[in-house]
Amino acid sequence: MNALRILGIDPGLNITGYGVIEIVPGRAPKVCEAGVVRGKTRESLTARLAEIHEGVVDVIKSLNPSAMALEQLYSHYKQPRTAILMGHARGVICLAATQATIPVIHYSATQIKKVLTGSGRAPKMQMQEAIQRELCLAKLPEPADVADALAIALCHYYLNVKRSLLGGTAKSR
Amino acid sequence: MNALRILGIDPGLNITGYGVIEIVPGRAPKVCEAGVVRGKTRESLTARLAEIHEGVVDVIKSLNPSAMALEQLYSHYKQPRTAILMGHARGVICLAATQATIPVIHYSATQIKKVLTGSGRAPKMQMQEAIQRELCLAKLPEPADVADALAIALCHYYLNVKRSLLGGTAKSR
Repeated sequence: MNALRILGIDPGLNITGYGVIEIVPGRAPKVCEAGVVRGKTRESLTARLAEIHEGVVDVIKSLNPSAMALEQLYSHYKQPRTAILMGHARGVICLAATQATIPVIHYSATQIKKVLTGSGRAPKMQMQEAIQRELCLAKLPEPADVADALAIALCHYYLNVKRSLLGGTAKSR
Repeated sequence: MNALRILGIDPGLNITGYGVIEIVPGRAPKVCEAGVVRGKTRESLTARLAEIHEGVVDVIKSLNPSAMALEQLYSHYKQPRTAILMGHARGVICLAATQATIPVIHYSATQIKKVLTGSGRAPKMQMQEAIQRELCLAKLPEPADVADALAIALCHYYLNVKRSLLGGTAKSR
């Protein structure tokens, strides 16, 4: 079986973090590529959305992941306006995945924290240590959006992929 | 000068209303085409977003509008979860316009009502009568999303297009 890749995304209108992890059965997951897509055109929401969509399309084309994992946008957001604008960014990111026929899986912040640390309320430092340890990284990638994207990809691996690989139900690619 | 077309959109995850009005200087604006794009795939948000995007891309391709007008999504929404999901739909709709290099202009609900009735707090019935009168329609198009989309297109016409046509600053197409 060839390597299987999971794309984690931390959406944002200014900076969207992405992290692709590679899974080879019997080995620890490792980072394939991680970085950011920037919405540069400050004046226009629509131009930024096009930049984000194009950036994510490029990441998918060049790294060929088999799934995209995203954090659920919670409705009790402190700034409703920000949450609505973030919804716009999530919309074009989900679209990029669907256009490439990649499934999109959503996880809550609590799920992501619990899977990586054992506690759904883990503080930031504990999460960062877990990401570094799980991916055998000498130091944590920056900015934080990249580390967050890797955490979401790892969450998908532990909750959905690892189990099916162990159960022998994963398809060869 | 040829006819100029304005696309008004009333975004929704289930039903997105659209209305294209045609402007010929010296004549009243008339409906070119109006209808709905449906997000049919109930189970999946991402599939629905792809359907909405594709539908709006088709409308733009076949009707060739020169601008898209949208209602601003207000942040004091009664159901924040709905507002965030609506943000996703708006995101892919704005993307469709930007990909076709059409400018997107946002108007508040108050602006739209004020332009069409003289009052930013006009009740629904008064708005419906205004849309019917302005566009010389024998009856109001249904569902309501279509009439709302036409109202947004008319608002753009009165606030941005009519003035520049009268001032002679509009470019020939």
